[in-house]
Amino acid sequence: MGSQILPSWNDGAARAAIMDFVGRVTKEGGPDYVRPAERIATFDNDGTLWCEQPLQVQFFFARERLDAMVEKDPSLKDRPPFKAFVDRDMEAIKAQGKKALMTVAAAVHAGTTEDEFYVIAEEWLARGKHPTLGRLFTQLTYRPQVELLDYLRANGFRTFIVSGGGIDLIRAFAETAYGIPREQVVGSSNKTRFELVDGRASLVKLAELGSFDDREVKPANINLHIGRRPILAFGNSDGDLAMMRYALGNRGPSLALLLHHDDADREFAYDREFVLSPLAEALDKAADYGITVVSMKRDWKAVFTSDP
Amino acid sequence: MGSQILPSWNDGAARAAIMDFVGRVTKEGGPDYVRPAERIATFDNDGTLWCEQPLQVQFFFARERLDAMVEKDPSLKDRPPFKAFVDRDMEAIKAQGKKALMTVAAAVHAGTTEDEFYVIAEEWLARGKHPTLGRLFTQLTYRPQVELLDYLRANGFRTFIVSGGGIDLIRAFAETAYGIPREQVVGSSNKTRFELVDGRASLVKLAELGSFDDREVKPANINLHIGRRPILAFGNSDGDLAMMRYALGNRGPSLALLLHHDDADREFAYDREFVLSPLAEALDKAADYGITVVSMKRDWKAVFTSDP
Repeated sequence: MGSQILPSWNDGAARAAIMDFVGRVTKEGGPDYVRPAERIATFDNDGTLWCEQPLQVQFFFARERLDAMVEKDPSLKDRPPFKAFVDRDMEAIKAQGKKALMTVAAAVHAGTTEDEFYVIAEEWLARGKHPTLGRLFTQLTYRPQVELLDYLRANGFRTFIVSGGGIDLIRAFAETAYGIPREQVVGSSNKTRFELVDGRASLVKLAELGSFDDREVKPANINLHIGRRPILAFGNSDGDLAMMRYALGNRGPSLALLLHHDDADREFAYDREFVLSPLAEALDKAADYGITVVSMKRDWKAVFTSDP
Repeated sequence: MGSQILPSWNDGAARAAIMDFVGRVTKEGGPDYVRPAERIATFDNDGTLWCEQPLQVQFFFARERLDAMVEKDPSLKDRPPFKAFVDRDMEAIKAQGKKALMTVAAAVHAGTTEDEFYVIAEEWLARGKHPTLGRLFTQLTYRPQVELLDYLRANGFRTFIVSGGGIDLIRAFAETAYGIPREQVVGSSNKTRFELVDGRASLVKLAELGSFDDREVKPANINLHIGRRPILAFGNSDGDLAMMRYALGNRGPSLALLLHHDDADREFAYDREFVLSPLAEALDKAADYGITVVSMKRDWKAVFTSDP
């Protein structure tokens, strides 16, 4: 008989660690009780809540927007870091790294107001398809994680996304996909300028990164946006390590979880060779740091929310 | 017989405007219905939710911290913008303006971790007293506003503070005083640096302003932290005008409220002459912009939460 709790998680050490932790922090009068105000859980998005292979979803969105920009300004074709994207040169894109991807993403957002951007993002998300899996990107969220988010909220947690991806694109689907409202999404962001557009007070996105929410910036942004140390943090790359260690530095109980993509049959198998977002130190030091490794292959009964 | 709703508000145009607005946006099937996810209300703090005279509370906190710094580094006594604060030279402090106050505040926060800061802030807030009213600062929150926050939340709103004051000091008391959790507080902030302090992952506050959350920066920070246009915004100075106009730019219904401190008997009477945070344009243009002016003298039956 299957359990009602976390049904897409196999019985095993990871599921047990989660359930033990939630049981302890919610047990009133117990030594590890945490009052609801302090039950903060933070999740990375790309590769933790949805598929990030062959490249982060952000990339496919940016590339389409870039094509439209190039029509207006062909000189972009020869300018780094845009050239590699226009040329679809995956090796060059990977060699340029994640920050170059964010720079391109920032540039393609520029000039729209925040309201206009949501319209563009929602339109694209409604049709943006994974290049090999043939499903909408929004259908490639992970079912065990959606269950976990629900389970945490049912136990008084507030769940946040803390992602290196562009904050507005995530906000455009996080409520529907994950039950996470916009104000509980933290991510990389453009600077904006307040101005009157046709007499209406608006924010215009600038082609300048405000924050690249990766590595040590994640805890800093958690402090800025949330103002509390998470007691549970879930990631899948070295870009999430600082966030996981920040959670583990909590004076009270804490749990850090690391998703290992080791399931080439059902999803993709990758870790240290993924140039844009490698997993190496966090995997090697998981035991030292007290991080619980989640194996997609062993710990998950199902992978995608859209699986039968 | 007094009303159960907003009992500290006098019957009048302001109370009627609030109740009419809340009634319309919550009426399912009505033309102005707003779904709960979009019911965002933003409040300034100093002078809107609590007393800001003779100077913002932040000032008294910073001055005490600065005295302790001067003991360690006497050279601060002769360096602007610190000198005016050390000398208690109120005219010079006012002439230096609000940003200088924030710079001093940022400097006195520097070097503590975010955890240590909360301990310092809570200790001070438990004893920090208003210089002339003789009550704790935390007893000088406005009762009608606490009722309004409760009323909005009872109607499905999420209530946020968007303040020029230091974000961490507000977070240290907003939950208790206003029922607003830390993650719903936006304010001015220091930059921080992630580091291991005694082997524990921590954020150390730097003596550098990350964001001075005033005027046009308020809408930008609302977009960054919340990701939605507020449908209700409440302020008391020109520093809140951009935020109010941003709310009024909503495509659906919106309400902007401006508290006018015109009650010298029960609180203080001031507007355009308050150097650090003047009220002039917002008052002069309230009718043009569609801002509802709230008169403390006429619209509020009671002022402070600690009044009998």
